[in-house]
Amino acid sequence: MPQITLKDIANKLGLSKATVSKALNGSFEISDATKKKVLHAARLLNYTPNQVAVNLRKKQTKTIGVIIPTTVHHFFSKIIDGIIKRAEKDEYLVILLQSNENFSLEKKQVNLLLDKRVDGILISLSNKTNEFVHLNKIIKRNVPLVLFDKIEPSIPCSKVVIDDFKAAYNSVVYLIKKGYKKIAHFRGDFNPKNAVDRFEGYKQALIDNNIEFDPTLVFMCNNNADFEDGYASAKKMITTGIKVDAIFAITDLIAIGAIKYLREQQVKIPEDIAVFGFSNWFMSSVVTPTLSTVDQPAYKMGEMSMEILLSEIRNLQQHNDITHKEVVLPTKLVIRNSC
Amino acid sequence: MPQITLKDIANKLGLSKATVSKALNGSFEISDATKKKVLHAARLLNYTPNQVAVNLRKKQTKTIGVIIPTTVHHFFSKIIDGIIKRAEKDEYLVILLQSNENFSLEKKQVNLLLDKRVDGILISLSNKTNEFVHLNKIIKRNVPLVLFDKIEPSIPCSKVVIDDFKAAYNSVVYLIKKGYKKIAHFRGDFNPKNAVDRFEGYKQALIDNNIEFDPTLVFMCNNNADFEDGYASAKKMITTGIKVDAIFAITDLIAIGAIKYLREQQVKIPEDIAVFGFSNWFMSSVVTPTLSTVDQPAYKMGEMSMEILLSEIRNLQQHNDITHKEVVLPTKLVIRNSC
Repeated sequence: MPQITLKDIANKLGLSKATVSKALNGSFEISDATKKKVLHAARLLNYTPNQVAVNLRKKQTKTIGVIIPTTVHHFFSKIIDGIIKRAEKDEYLVILLQSNENFSLEKKQVNLLLDKRVDGILISLSNKTNEFVHLNKIIKRNVPLVLFDKIEPSIPCSKVVIDDFKAAYNSVVYLIKKGYKKIAHFRGDFNPKNAVDRFEGYKQALIDNNIEFDPTLVFMCNNNADFEDGYASAKKMITTGIKVDAIFAITDLIAIGAIKYLREQQVKIPEDIAVFGFSNWFMSSVVTPTLSTVDQPAYKMGEMSMEILLSEIRNLQQHNDITHKEVVLPTKLVIRNSC
Repeated sequence: MPQITLKDIANKLGLSKATVSKALNGSFEISDATKKKVLHAARLLNYTPNQVAVNLRKKQTKTIGVIIPTTVHHFFSKIIDGIIKRAEKDEYLVILLQSNENFSLEKKQVNLLLDKRVDGILISLSNKTNEFVHLNKIIKRNVPLVLFDKIEPSIPCSKVVIDDFKAAYNSVVYLIKKGYKKIAHFRGDFNPKNAVDRFEGYKQALIDNNIEFDPTLVFMCNNNADFEDGYASAKKMITTGIKVDAIFAITDLIAIGAIKYLREQQVKIPEDIAVFGFSNWFMSSVVTPTLSTVDQPAYKMGEMSMEILLSEIRNLQQHNDITHKEVVLPTKLVIRNSC
């Protein structure tokens, strides 16, 4: 069954294509009798308008572009879930792109989305993104942009984040109150901002509790910030004889990598060394021992980012002013058996 | 900076919009001198063609639609990774939709994608899909369709699957060879096909090894086929006094739910009861005890499905014949400490 076109309806009724089009669009130029005849034929032939053409006329595509560093990640897959479900409600479609933590790919993808005339763009920046010409291009084109999770504060657009500093601060204060004093930090790279904020939160919690900050207790996990990084850092710490009584890891994956190495070395968790993660991946509740961590509202973050983007798109279409929002979503500590 | 249009170039050069358009498209109607002038102005003004309009003319959107049951799933997120990375190579964009295991949503999403004039569609069916009018509609519209993982054999289109029967068969034969005789099966729903195939593989392995099939050892996990289902089935099995020496679970999540309950009851794994999963989620390698399971080539499945779809799209555009492919990807057993 080939696609039914305006021409097919026109041929069937012996009318011009323009008349059929005007009739379907309810134009005042066409008589009610003709409109009725055209609508009847359209239904009979199972005609659906070419949405691409309709959108071209309306200068909207009902399509949103989303760029995230990776999809194979419990946190990001929950964010995608929130984004897609919120988009669904307003019948927007979501084009999903992965930057794979690659800055030049991220730039290329922004161009692809702009060429595609998406109605708005959501981005969580790659860890390698340290120039922002591509983001400013989106803004200059007057396409609504919302940054989430991994953001750049200087970009004039809406942002949805958690307070990484505060969440890290609270985690480390919790460990200190439980009696831990020599607390290592398995940190992320100097980019993006959230790794830096978590490190600063860790440091400030020590200082505020009269524990001297010791840079030798900070281990850089900047390979992929994953399981192997945590394993390698724990190994480095133990084999170089650095003594700690707790580890605050920047992600659950790094924490679980550390747990694996420590258990292999018969280090008791939490008796010898406590471990604290960040993100509350599902697996943190099934690993042994179950992992204490920071719960991040991933689904909510996706939903809220899309919510703000849709409202900016609506305002733009209605020629209303757009006020950028900066939303900080609350996190909470989830205490389990690892500390 | 507003979007530069053909009209802007035309105004700048004192030419008609049609002439500029023809010049940019290299039409023989336009002199080389004019073409050069137009191209120069286009570059100067940083003109990019409206891709939506270009695609409308070419009757292609360079966009693929993907419908999957859920994104919050290690297996599906790896499939998405494979799909998106393969699409990227050919500069195709991917619209991602989730059916949330809801049949009517899946039908609606097919219509949305057809309205959007995507160049092709990939679907892994929801567990509730038992009518196929929507799939036949795609085929009647002459839009290439590839089904993957959760498929319907009767649909005349390409398919990418694993051999669920064989993978389940091999897992249970492995357990039998290790000396386990009373093997429970925590099964999935009667729909989709892969749950049925795994059950049949389990049954056949018993029969071929002279172990009588006992239906009281089969537990239905059809709530969400998730962690809680596995936990509940293990609880039901233990509290009703059904004695087994091994469990073959239809997914890792169900296996890990079972492990959690068994450990709470001080049941030793694998000494008292061995546990075997299916999928090889990352968490299976970090749970205690680490879980034996079937490794499914998720990334490969996504990549291959997209590969086949792109080749069908190319053939369609070049008016070549399309031969549907049915690819069965190999799986392998991953033996760890749970058996």
